[in-house]
Amino acid sequence: MKIIVDVMGADNSPDVMVKAAVRAVKELSAQIILVGDEKEINRVLSENKLSSADLQIVNANDVITMEDDPISVRKKPESSLAVCLNLLKNGEGDALVSAGNSGALLVGATLFVRCIKGVRRAAMAPVMPVKNGMLMIADSGANIECKPEMLEQFAVMGSVYMKNVLGINNPRVGLANNGAEETKGTDLYVETHKVLKENKNINFVGNVEGRGVPMGECDVLVCDGFTGNLILKTYEGAGKMFADEIKNMFKKNIISKIGALFVLGGIKDLKKRMDYKEIGGAVILGISKPVIKAHGSSDEKAFFSAIRQAVNFVSTDVISKISDEMGKEA
Amino acid sequence: MKIIVDVMGADNSPDVMVKAAVRAVKELSAQIILVGDEKEINRVLSENKLSSADLQIVNANDVITMEDDPISVRKKPESSLAVCLNLLKNGEGDALVSAGNSGALLVGATLFVRCIKGVRRAAMAPVMPVKNGMLMIADSGANIECKPEMLEQFAVMGSVYMKNVLGINNPRVGLANNGAEETKGTDLYVETHKVLKENKNINFVGNVEGRGVPMGECDVLVCDGFTGNLILKTYEGAGKMFADEIKNMFKKNIISKIGALFVLGGIKDLKKRMDYKEIGGAVILGISKPVIKAHGSSDEKAFFSAIRQAVNFVSTDVISKISDEMGKEA
Repeated sequence: MKIIVDVMGADNSPDVMVKAAVRAVKELSAQIILVGDEKEINRVLSENKLSSADLQIVNANDVITMEDDPISVRKKPESSLAVCLNLLKNGEGDALVSAGNSGALLVGATLFVRCIKGVRRAAMAPVMPVKNGMLMIADSGANIECKPEMLEQFAVMGSVYMKNVLGINNPRVGLANNGAEETKGTDLYVETHKVLKENKNINFVGNVEGRGVPMGECDVLVCDGFTGNLILKTYEGAGKMFADEIKNMFKKNIISKIGALFVLGGIKDLKKRMDYKEIGGAVILGISKPVIKAHGSSDEKAFFSAIRQAVNFVSTDVISKISDEMGKEA
Repeated sequence: MKIIVDVMGADNSPDVMVKAAVRAVKELSAQIILVGDEKEINRVLSENKLSSADLQIVNANDVITMEDDPISVRKKPESSLAVCLNLLKNGEGDALVSAGNSGALLVGATLFVRCIKGVRRAAMAPVMPVKNGMLMIADSGANIECKPEMLEQFAVMGSVYMKNVLGINNPRVGLANNGAEETKGTDLYVETHKVLKENKNINFVGNVEGRGVPMGECDVLVCDGFTGNLILKTYEGAGKMFADEIKNMFKKNIISKIGALFVLGGIKDLKKRMDYKEIGGAVILGISKPVIKAHGSSDEKAFFSAIRQAVNFVSTDVISKISDEMGKEA
């Protein structure tokens, strides 16, 4: 298996990406193609005394920054991202991982690699730690305006992913909404509720309110990208705020610092369970080849997890399973 | 000042409401009109050996339940809520507090008491504890479909409330969105961004992403009711989840229980700051008289806080200040 890694365009590029890739070669028995400024890549390897064994380097002279327009992936054919996408399209690698510009990755994946046959639009679908498990949000920002059939496809694709990659039996699909009754929400949500209810290929558990998201009331949360983005980031922000508050609580004085020592194991355990860096990135769901978007601010651990996620994505053959589902009658 | 209290229709009705009202009479120097089943009210007073001094009791034979349709406020004229609304409308009290059916309260307030002149639609606007302060979300569920002019009015009314009742100088208004750029979001949000930017009577700080909500990046968050409800409840759910996790961490074993003793002060302090029960309920913003919706599951403390909030709402004369703003050019 060969994973294509875009080392440019992220907050900690390229150092973190190169180091994570070297670790992935060792631990995941995957081959890696590093794409980016060759001189920079070699600098990182030599500075960190890392071997380039099983690493293939493809030079790219240009880079898409976080500030660039998504369509710049077309206008910058020499950019690391455009080079990555062409490698993926041409079958020179099995999956792509990037921590760069989300919009450009999404647009590029759709334009260069294309959607799975029958899929109307790709979704940005991160997997989050919640109470007692993991939750995929589809969509979390790729599609601001949606139609019921799009949300239905997100539900189907998300179910296939969560079942195969995370091993969740019969994943529960919930529809984000402002109430439990099926008449709740905007026209889009009332209509989508009906469509999901009638779909025999998914395990639809009904509307899920905001409280149900952190409490893990479903495994796949279906919503439009505007709503999903706000839910995702409110949840992330709340996590950050509470973590800060707890840190301050323990750091307050010598007594509280002693207290922290008594619960060190518990703190570490909670931190590990709630740490997105352990999980990976967002799946670009619906593209005909595996594409993972890692956090823009990924550190080595987070980026390594994203590569591992790509490896699992490929080895579980989710794309062809989604493709089969797309052919089925609902 | 006279506060009308609906004691029926909530999870802990009427016991909690009656007890909170007696406390409010003592501590807030407010007169209270209790509305509900007179026998039940007298039972609570006698069981708890409470004095009925400064309490006026108005009997109501019917009740609107949580399951009733909002419009039932019309169909049940004998219900405690309908009686409350008529008392408010007729000037027999200065404000209304209810922990019952939100939809019925909103519809009833609009139909019986009416909106402030010039206000298109009332908003359900809770005040939440966030990092370093308080945040009002307007709307959080009253208006599923909105127009830019409605969101603009929520911004203006929310600013007046936060300035006068919470004493926040020049409250920062943020527009919920999936990105910081002014071109982000659905058509409604792109259009609303323009309108808010041009309004000279508010302190618009631009789009606020989900992460900015718990981090307190604004004092008034403006959004449609569908989005606001999901943001509010995701945040509440995250708070509940983290609180549970921390409790479990401390309860794990004898060592961790000892640890908890060392940070007891910090835990209490955090709990107090994050406790919605200390704050009150949601303001029904835009109604021509003060109406507060307390949590359906309010305990005595929460319901007392809601009465206190109503007292502050009246004493700061926010309604006539909103009324003045409605007459101003934007």
